[in-house]
Order: sequence, then C-alpha cells, then structure tokens
Amino acid sequence: MRSHYCGTVTAQHLDQTVTLCGWARRRRDHGGVIFIDLADRSGIVQVVVDPDRPEAFRLAEAVRNEYVLRVTGTVRRRPEGTENPNIPTGEIEVFVETLEILNTSAPLPFPIDDEHLSETVRLTHRVLDLRRPTMQKNLLLRYQVTRAFRRFLDAHGFVDIETPMLTKSTPEGARDYLVPSRVHPGHFFALPQSPQLFKQLLMVAGFDRYYQITKCFRDEDLRADRQPEFTQVDIETSFLTQEEIIALMEEMIRSVFAEVLDVTLPNPFPRLTYDEAMLRYGSDKPDLRVTLELTDVTDAVRDVAFKVFSGPANSGGKVMALRVPGGAALTRGEIDDYTRFVAIYGAKGLAYIKVNDAAQPNEKGLQSPIVKNLHERALRTILERTSAQTGDLLFFGADKPKIVFDSLGALRVKLGHEKGFLTGAEWAPVWVVDFPMFEYDEDEKRWVACHHPFTSPREADLPYLESDPARVRAQAYDLALNGWEIGGGSIRIYREAVQRKVFAALGISEAEAQEKFGFLLDALKYGAPPHGGLAFGLDRIVTLMTGAESIRDVIAFPKTQRAQCLLTHAPSPVSEAQLKELHLRLRLPEKATNAS
Amino acid sequence: MRSHYCGTVTAQHLDQTVTLCGWARRRRDHGGVIFIDLADRSGIVQVVVDPDRPEAFRLAEAVRNEYVLRVTGTVRRRPEGTENPNIPTGEIEVFVETLEILNTSAPLPFPIDDEHLSETVRLTHRVLDLRRPTMQKNLLLRYQVTRAFRRFLDAHGFVDIETPMLTKSTPEGARDYLVPSRVHPGHFFALPQSPQLFKQLLMVAGFDRYYQITKCFRDEDLRADRQPEFTQVDIETSFLTQEEIIALMEEMIRSVFAEVLDVTLPNPFPRLTYDEAMLRYGSDKPDLRVTLELTDVTDAVRDVAFKVFSGPANSGGKVMALRVPGGAALTRGEIDDYTRFVAIYGAKGLAYIKVNDAAQPNEKGLQSPIVKNLHERALRTILERTSAQTGDLLFFGADKPKIVFDSLGALRVKLGHEKGFLTGAEWAPVWVVDFPMFEYDEDEKRWVACHHPFTSPREADLPYLESDPARVRAQAYDLALNGWEIGGGSIRIYREAVQRKVFAALGISEAEAQEKFGFLLDALKYGAPPHGGLAFGLDRIVTLMTGAESIRDVIAFPKTQRAQCLLTHAPSPVSEAQLKELHLRLRLPEKATNAS
Repeated sequence: MRSHYCGTVTAQHLDQTVTLCGWARRRRDHGGVIFIDLADRSGIVQVVVDPDRPEAFRLAEAVRNEYVLRVTGTVRRRPEGTENPNIPTGEIEVFVETLEILNTSAPLPFPIDDEHLSETVRLTHRVLDLRRPTMQKNLLLRYQVTRAFRRFLDAHGFVDIETPMLTKSTPEGARDYLVPSRVHPGHFFALPQSPQLFKQLLMVAGFDRYYQITKCFRDEDLRADRQPEFTQVDIETSFLTQEEIIALMEEMIRSVFAEVLDVTLPNPFPRLTYDEAMLRYGSDKPDLRVTLELTDVTDAVRDVAFKVFSGPANSGGKVMALRVPGGAALTRGEIDDYTRFVAIYGAKGLAYIKVNDAAQPNEKGLQSPIVKNLHERALRTILERTSAQTGDLLFFGADKPKIVFDSLGALRVKLGHEKGFLTGAEWAPVWVVDFPMFEYDEDEKRWVACHHPFTSPREADLPYLESDPARVRAQAYDLALNGWEIGGGSIRIYREAVQRKVFAALGISEAEAQEKFGFLLDALKYGAPPHGGLAFGLDRIVTLMTGAESIRDVIAFPKTQRAQCLLTHAPSPVSEAQLKELHLRLRLPEKATNAS
Repeated sequence: MRSHYCGTVTAQHLDQTVTLCGWARRRRDHGGVIFIDLADRSGIVQVVVDPDRPEAFRLAEAVRNEYVLRVTGTVRRRPEGTENPNIPTGEIEVFVETLEILNTSAPLPFPIDDEHLSETVRLTHRVLDLRRPTMQKNLLLRYQVTRAFRRFLDAHGFVDIETPMLTKSTPEGARDYLVPSRVHPGHFFALPQSPQLFKQLLMVAGFDRYYQITKCFRDEDLRADRQPEFTQVDIETSFLTQEEIIALMEEMIRSVFAEVLDVTLPNPFPRLTYDEAMLRYGSDKPDLRVTLELTDVTDAVRDVAFKVFSGPANSGGKVMALRVPGGAALTRGEIDDYTRFVAIYGAKGLAYIKVNDAAQPNEKGLQSPIVKNLHERALRTILERTSAQTGDLLFFGADKPKIVFDSLGALRVKLGHEKGFLTGAEWAPVWVVDFPMFEYDEDEKRWVACHHPFTSPREADLPYLESDPARVRAQAYDLALNGWEIGGGSIRIYREAVQRKVFAALGISEAEAQEKFGFLLDALKYGAPPHGGLAFGLDRIVTLMTGAESIRDVIAFPKTQRAQCLLTHAPSPVSEAQLKELHLRLRLPEKATNAS
C-alpha cells in the first residue's frame, strides 16, 4: 500500500514517485494550494495538493485533522525559504498526483499536540494519547530497551523460559491477585508476584542461566511508581558468586544505556554497604547525584539537656545532621517548608543550626533555638564531624532510626535538586550490598525477611540464625539509579537444611513450610546447585531513561492509582451466571451496587 | 566458579586445566579408579579420579547420582578403545586434581534417563523431569524459536508492545478467567483470551507494526493440545493487504524453520479456500502430508433407494466418498475398527464399497452390502468422480455436513498415516482462506462469528450482512501445518459503521455493543487505519518442531487436563481473610470442603 514511511522521505528521494500512508496532522490552504502534514510513526512529511490535480484537490478539500490518507506523488525540493530544518523531511515536499481518503475522523476531543492534558483525559482517550509523539517515543524506547536486554542476555548464554501466570497463592510479602478455579470449587490460583520460586526450580533442573521479561502482579495500594501489573527483567544463574553476578549485571546495564541512549555509565558502579548507605544518605537507594551527606551525631548528644536529642540518643534512636553548605542564607519561610516536608515522613520537627562562625561552637557563633540546650563539647563534635563551615546550616533529625533516615534522606534529595548540590552526573548507579537478613516487624512481633525467605545468609552468619537474627547479613544486592531502586536480587539458599532454619527464624512452622513451600524443599533435596539472580524493574528503568513523569507514561494501557482502566472500564461487574460457575457469591459492603 | 561447560570440553583442550561444575549422572568404579559422568545443560564429560589424589578420591567415593560437583583437572585423551563417538566429549576425559561436593542429593524417585515415566510422576517431580535431556532440548528449542520469531519481526519493523493482563471481561468466544478486585467490590478483571482489541487500538494509535509473544488465557475444558494459559506470537500491521500479510508471515515461518531446524519449507505455501479444504479434506486445517482426498457425491445419490444416502442428500446434508487405493485388501476387522473410529465424530456408520472390477459399476464389479440399493448411474458417477481403480475401496460418509467432514476428515488422516498414503514431505504448511464470516449456532439460534466479531467481511459481501449472512465471506486466513492449526488472523474492520453492522448481524444490541466494545467503536471514529494481523500458537509450533507428544512437553510448568499444577498444588484454598478482602464468599457444591 505504500513505498516509504512519511518521516523517511528526504532529499535523496528527489524526483522519485512515492506512495505514503498516514494521518493528516494539519491542513493549510495557502495561495490556492493545500498543504497537509502527513504523519506516521516515523515522523511527518509535507504533501502539497495543487488545483491542477482536480480530483485529488477536491478530496483534499474534505480532509480534516486525523483523516487517514494514502497519497502518491513526486518528491521535490521545497521552495527556498520554506525549508524546515527541525525535521528530517524538512527540505522536501511531496507533490501529490493521487490522494485517497482511507478513513475519516470525527473532530478530536483535544488537539493531538496538546502537552498539557490531565491524566484522566489522557487515560480515557488513551488511543489518541498514544498517537502523540511523546508517547510514541516512550513506547518505542521501551521496545529498544527490552531488545537491548535480550541482546545482552542472549549473547551471554541466558535462556528465556516462560513460567506460569496461574500459580499458587503464598501469602508472604505483598498481597496476591487471586483467580478462582471453576473446576476446583473453593480453590484459587494466584497471579505471580514474581517468578522467584520457578526460576530457582529451573536452576535446580539444570538450566544454568535463565531470563524472562515478564509481567508480575501485586494487589497493593498504588503509589506513583507502582502498577498492579508491572514488568520485570527476571534473571537467575547457577555457579556464579555474588561478585560475578554483580559484575555481569552491571555490564548489562551499561550495555543497555550505551545501546539505547549512547550514554557511558561508570565502570565499575560504586558500591555501598547497606549500613553505609543508610548512615550517609538515609536511604538504601541513595541518589548519588546529590552531594549532600548525613552525619551521625547520636553519641555526641547523649548527655545534652535538649531532650529532643538526648531522648532518642539514649533509647535506640538516632540523631543525625544534614549539612547544607551556604545554608545559613535559607529564609525562615524555606525552613518552614522543609519542616512541613519532613513531617510527611513522620518527623515531629526539623531542628537546625545556622553556622555564623564555625570557630565558635556556642551561642555566639551558632544561631538556633536549640543551641542553648546543647553543651559546647557536643556542638564542637557536631561541627567537626559535619565539617561545617561559616555560612552553612545544619538540619537535624532525632527519632527512631527509620523516621530519621526517611525524613533526612528525603530532605537531602529535595535540597540537593532544589538548591543545586549536585555532582553534575546525569546518571548515578550504585550497588547496595550486605543487607540485613531480617527486620523486626513491630506490628506482627516477629522477624520478617528484608528481601525474601529464599535469600542466602552470609556463610559466616549462619551460626546466628537462631541466636541473633539481627546480626545476620544477607547475600543480597540492590541496584539504585538516581535514587530509584531499579533492581535487586540475592544469592539463594541452595541447602535444604539452611532453608528450613530460615523458615524457622521467620516463625514459619515445619507444617506450614511443607504446605506452602514443600515443592521448593523437595527440589533442594535433589542436587540443587549454588545459584542466585536478580530482577530489574523495566517500567522504572524506562521511566528514568525517557525522563517521563510517571511509569504510566511508559505503559501502553496503564491503570489509575485506583487500579482502574479508564479506557475499557475494567474492572467491571460480571454476570450471576459467571459467579455461579466459579462457586462464588458477592459479599458487598452496604450501599454498594449489586453485580448486574 | 568454572572455566568451561561440561559438554564443550574436547580434544582441542588437551593438556589444559579446566574447572567444571555439574551433576554426577553416573559413577563407576573400575580398576580402583572412579569414573564420573559429569553433566550440565551443555552435555556430559567423563571425569576420572585416581587414588593418587587421596583427598579428591575420598570425596569421590561419597558421590552419588545427582550430587552437585565442582572439579578441577587436566584434559587428557581417553585410552584407545574407550572413546565414545556418540558425544562431543567422547575423545577426552578430565583427570581430576581437586573435587568439591557443592551439594548432595537424596536418591531420586526415578532414574533421570527413564523415558517411560507416567505423566503424573513427571509433573509431580517436574524439577527432576526437566533435568532430563529431552526436556532440556525441548525448552532450549522453544527459546530458539522465540528468538527466531523476534529476530524476523525486529528486522521487519515490528515493535514489541505489552498489553494488559488485567483487563475487561467480554463474554464472547471462550470463557474468561476472572480476577476479583479488592478496591472495587463486586467488580472483576478478566485475563485476556488474546490481546485482540488492544493490538487493534495500537494500530489506531499509529504504531503501524506490533508484535508480542504473550500469555493468553481460556478457562475451557482441556484437550491434549490446550492449556489454561498458552503463548501466542501476536502480530498486527497497518496499511497491508491480506496478500501482503500472508506473504510476510509465511516468509517469517520459513525463516524460523530454516534458522532453528535447518528445514526449507515450500515457497510459497499452498493455499486453499475454506470450501475447497472442507470438500477435499474434510477439515479447515488439512494435513497435506496425506495424499488421500474426499469426493462429494451428494448430487449423484439424491434418487437412490438407499435412504442412508438419499436422506442426507435431500435435506441439506452431504454424502462423500474417501477413496483408498488398494483398499479392497482391508480386512473386515480393520473396517470395523475404522467404523468405531468415525463414531467418535458422530458418524452412525461407515458404508464402503470394495472395487473388484472398476469397469463394472454394479453388483458384479463392486462388493458391498449397499450396492444393491444404489442404481448403476449413481455407481458409475461415484467411480468416475473418485477415479476408483480395481482393487480400491471407497468409504462413505452421509450425514449433516459437519459430521461427514469431521469423520471422513479424521479417517483420511488416520488411514494416510497408518497405511502410508503420504507425500513423503516432512512439513506441509497450507493457508486456508475465504472463511465464512458467520456460522449459525443451532443451540443459541443465532449467527455467531467464525473468527471473531472484529474480522472484516470481504468488501464485495458487505451488502449481504443483513440480508444473507451465510453468504458473507471473511477476510480471514488460517495457517495449518501437518494438520494442526498453528496460526490464524484476519483483516479487521476499521470503519465504525461496518463494525456496528456486524454487531447487529450477531444479534448484539446497540446498547450492549456500546457497553462492551464502546472503547473500540470510539477508537474507530478517530482515524482508524486499515489494519490486520494474526496470532501464532507458540506451544503448538514448538510441539511440532520438537516432535513432542503433547504441548505439556514444551512448557516448563504446565497444568494437567484438570487444570492443576501437580508440582505446586495450584489452585489451592485461600484464607477467609483473603476472601473477605475481595468481597467474596464461597458457594460450594454439597460435600465440597470449605476453604481453610
């Protein structure tokens, strides 16, 4: 039906006859001649219809925006002075011989080049939204990224193997999406939160290197960077150490960025232990583009009169400082804004000290409501440890560790980007390693796995599994990029006895372990190789690479934050007959409507 | 951890030190020396442990089948006379310096090389089953096939775009798997039966060429070649005619077979209309490796005394013959077997005529209980039309067309393979085109779509949409290979008015169409391009290519015919708390157990 894509016709086709198909993006009548911008996924070309071609001209007069056209014509140079250097086809135009209207279009609900649409409008009219060049670019880049991942993995002996979508509900971690079985009344499949166990089983089966780019599902309340279904680049290998896996995976990420964006990432990626990441950046996915760092001053304030500091310092909390170079110039209003900001993360306040003279660690040199309650020794230590200079400002967090890390960590990133405390690097990947194996869940009063229960503890820490779970470090590693966690994984447990001990440490009884994970324990009996792997969040990586505002901008048909598809109106009620076949009855909250 | 894969060590590594990881597949003690077959996904190599290396020897003595080992040793030539020419490593062995037992293995429930396991045993111990060389080969070939598909599609400008898994229930076609929504009480997502509508929307959005290798779901009662979840190579294009799509797609299939199996498929593929396929082969997915053909004799037997023939012939049925060259030699027992066989397809009997003398179309030349009730004119026509020769046998089907086609079509294939009526071609692809648009559903008393309601009728048949649906042919095309339907698709409706007419012809009211397919009708309003595509069944293609007996042999973790996973025991009961969160209550049949 066509000889070329619109955006590919250039001066090298001069005097050639071309046939193009596309959408009329704009029609202008000028000097008795009709100009149409004809667009397809490759770009736009200008076509010209002259009254000398009366049939084509008559049809062209009827053309409205987004009509689908097929034109045949001759490529010619645009008249001097009318070239458009901004597009590849800008030197030429197509002089139309014949024109065919393949389909008409009703007037659009919004202009296709409107970049300021509300998300509701965009998701409701997603098909037209996807016709916008930005969304075309995003999805084409997403495709390039998956292709680059595949190319690397294929070249390194990884085998793409599909794992089931209809699988077993194992209520660990996030909430499952369930799928009722028609054949087995009262029984349900679960959609996979990840192919974790299946990929481990594939290692036990001897496939050695596995990958899959696959959908995963979590029925969680959504945040900006979450979707009910999301895509993972899922990877597992046998007989590689943590070092070897990390080296191979960062080589992969470098190759994807080089291939798709022509960007050179650092080699090697910097690496932080979990403890260091928390203490310096307040985050296990630190944004290393920001130069600001936290400083732990807990020990220095144990004996101060200021209870807001000494309280947490003496009861397992943390007191930490964030030095802002030149920050003494911050206004009262700005400090109030930051105080409100850290409150989002649970901080009850945001103490600060303006350093008017770094040589005087007392009320003379330091300006702050809190200085009078901090003795000079403490102040001196604080100034020394933060390397504070005259003209700086120190912010403080003092609370339970989680609140201090979360609030000062977020403030660090906000300040860094707003006030320009940046390294200048566009891309800042960093591995975070040596995660704790367990964290204590205050609500459930039990230890839970920081990664998942199949993560291998460090060999040296095995003796503490029962005696001191807090001391056990995991062979786990996360990759952060610009403050986003884009991947994570671990060396897995491959010995049945260790797996049983970890289940026990998590308070999972033998019987429960057998019922939920019996197939894994079985597999570990029969010659499981040492193995490990990781998973990358494709949606997040592509969001970062496109500079999109939300992962919804790199997904063709996303759900809203209320987990709805505004285009198709999913989810939707189903018939009583369907429910009956699935052996289900609705249990609706009061006032909710019945299924139709 | 290793320098080479086991199966890749050959004479070119002589005298080199290698480190290998793998499974002890077999241990033999011979002449005071221990021989171990060490296996990984690449193959097997023989390693030799001598008592001169006491530490390694001591460990080797403890090795049992499927222990996971790491060995370092020197590659040396096997002693003359002990080479194994059947494996690539057969000339050499690895003389072990150090040996490490990475993991032990309990005695296996079955020997890993047992090729005669029941499917229940295999699916229950799937991890060990997958360790068997046949299953390794199958899944590696599956991966090569998807890679070959991707390579072709990438090279031809197709863009891989993901479509949603949590989508809208549209009870057309097969039964949906439903996913209850926690956030929207009484509302359900459906898992996609195919990305059909989304890929059409992507064409309207201007993506031009789309593909996806993706899971689809159908909650149907399972047959040998069906799974609840299966994988499609899903393709859609804009601005291509049916001819262009067919040409491109068969080029793709040829390239996949050439790349993976080094097989040259015909160019072009033969093509049959639907009518021709049914009349000559009794099937819309004929196995063209079989040379036998059916012959329609309905018109010749309208006035015979034999009511079994004249009845159907005069009431819209069919009477058809299947000529079996040399078939007069078939025994009574064989004919009885075939009679029982066609009964599976609803045939009430299997009339036959043995041609003892083709020159005498009467009781003298023909041997059969039915000849006396067929007049000579009918018999002469039958012999002429079937080109029957002396020594042949003719089978007959006489019933409603569907029963005749199904039974004689199946008999044709069975006879062809059992008795060797074969072209000798290993691969026989064939396009079937010009399908009817509608078929009448006797149960529902309405017209239903043969393909799906989005298939475009032929332009010339549009006038008959309302007046004579049976006359309307669709721009649909299926690809059959060796009697299996491996792909199918169509040119889609791209004009809103036509889509509305087709919905009306299917008895879908305006309101219902708007509610279920409003987003499609909307999209067709705004400049939908002409488009079409198709989907290939990956599981079936790989099953054919591997020669596996069942699609379960090319899926890593399949379900049984009762839609269960014997490995993980999915589906399984869920907790009352989970049900409550999903606003559901069970409605169990009497005697069924309650959810735990």
